[in-house]
Amino acid sequence: MSTTLVIGNKNYSSWSLRPWLLLRQAGVAFEEVRLPLDTPEFQARIGDWSPTGRVPVLHDHGQVVWDSLAICEYANERWLRGSGWPGDPGRRALARSVACEMHSGFPALRAQLPMNCRREPRERHWDQAAQRDIDRVQSLWSELRGQAGGGDFLFGRFGIADAMFAPVCVRFRGYGVPLAGAAADYVEAIYALPAMSEWLMAGRAESERVAHDEA
Amino acid sequence: MSTTLVIGNKNYSSWSLRPWLLLRQAGVAFEEVRLPLDTPEFQARIGDWSPTGRVPVLHDHGQVVWDSLAICEYANERWLRGSGWPGDPGRRALARSVACEMHSGFPALRAQLPMNCRREPRERHWDQAAQRDIDRVQSLWSELRGQAGGGDFLFGRFGIADAMFAPVCVRFRGYGVPLAGAAADYVEAIYALPAMSEWLMAGRAESERVAHDEA
Repeated sequence: MSTTLVIGNKNYSSWSLRPWLLLRQAGVAFEEVRLPLDTPEFQARIGDWSPTGRVPVLHDHGQVVWDSLAICEYANERWLRGSGWPGDPGRRALARSVACEMHSGFPALRAQLPMNCRREPRERHWDQAAQRDIDRVQSLWSELRGQAGGGDFLFGRFGIADAMFAPVCVRFRGYGVPLAGAAADYVEAIYALPAMSEWLMAGRAESERVAHDEA
Repeated sequence: MSTTLVIGNKNYSSWSLRPWLLLRQAGVAFEEVRLPLDTPEFQARIGDWSPTGRVPVLHDHGQVVWDSLAICEYANERWLRGSGWPGDPGRRALARSVACEMHSGFPALRAQLPMNCRREPRERHWDQAAQRDIDRVQSLWSELRGQAGGGDFLFGRFGIADAMFAPVCVRFRGYGVPLAGAAADYVEAIYALPAMSEWLMAGRAESERVAHDEA
């Protein structure tokens, strides 16, 4: 097979989860190369794959695409026939706005609540900046689901905006973040995706013990 | 006019420069609202415009689009007929990869060399992490210009990838970052854009004295 997605640990690599989930959920056939973050193996092998030294990176018949969002845009054109974004131009602009907000934002949330599929909620220890990030994410989800007219996801059916936020669902569950009704339903919907279950099972089964935050 | 781009100070707001430059260079007619960053005026007025409390944000006949990259994607569909990205799918994927790398990356560069159009090079004071960011940006520019087949910009003609990196050109000049040949030529090409001159003149003329880094 000539389509390969290079990812980090499934337990920790939030950025890897995004394009992996989009591709898997869409039934795209790809080979997976997993490089455990922060290991000598990663350092030894990442240079063969990634011009940035980071994951995720996609190799598709000689075409190299890096960055979680750029891979999703590529997949949208290459395999999804545009269905990764809403078909309406205005809704598509809104979906890209929230995907981009996630892509470059929420630094406190990412730093203080790193993704860890194995984590069980214990003490809370985030600051006000992280709480503001948490509140913004939840109000965004509620508002978008309200506008989506009854679908489970941010824009009705599962798409790129959801893939971008899926790691946040894992963070919220793992840290026991209190969830408002619509946000709780959304996390439920993300967890109910078959590809999400597959990722989480694999992440929990990983033996690596090196904690890492890529954000 | 019903198209309004809300931006921060031209002197400091690197994120605002990106979509502003793309729209202006393309000759899109828009009204500009400028809110000086880190001022009571900003706090008082941003809520009327931006769902994130940040700039830039575009209002186009009732459609609200936020985030520098999402606005560029919207402009690409709305006014540029797709010419903001390369027409070839593989080149387009590459352009989105580098635009996204800039969008979420280079944290040391952004934190230690904040954009300031008025700054004149004096002492250097960045660390090794920022130097790695600087080196990566320059090698990316050189490589892309080499592949572009002689154009002045990263993918031949000016486009979204260039808009995303334009603020870095200002950072490099303002801090006296030593530039390799191809990188120096690229900064020159960005500075030679009429819209870039317009922005820089306006930025230097601003009276606000509050230094700020949005990155």
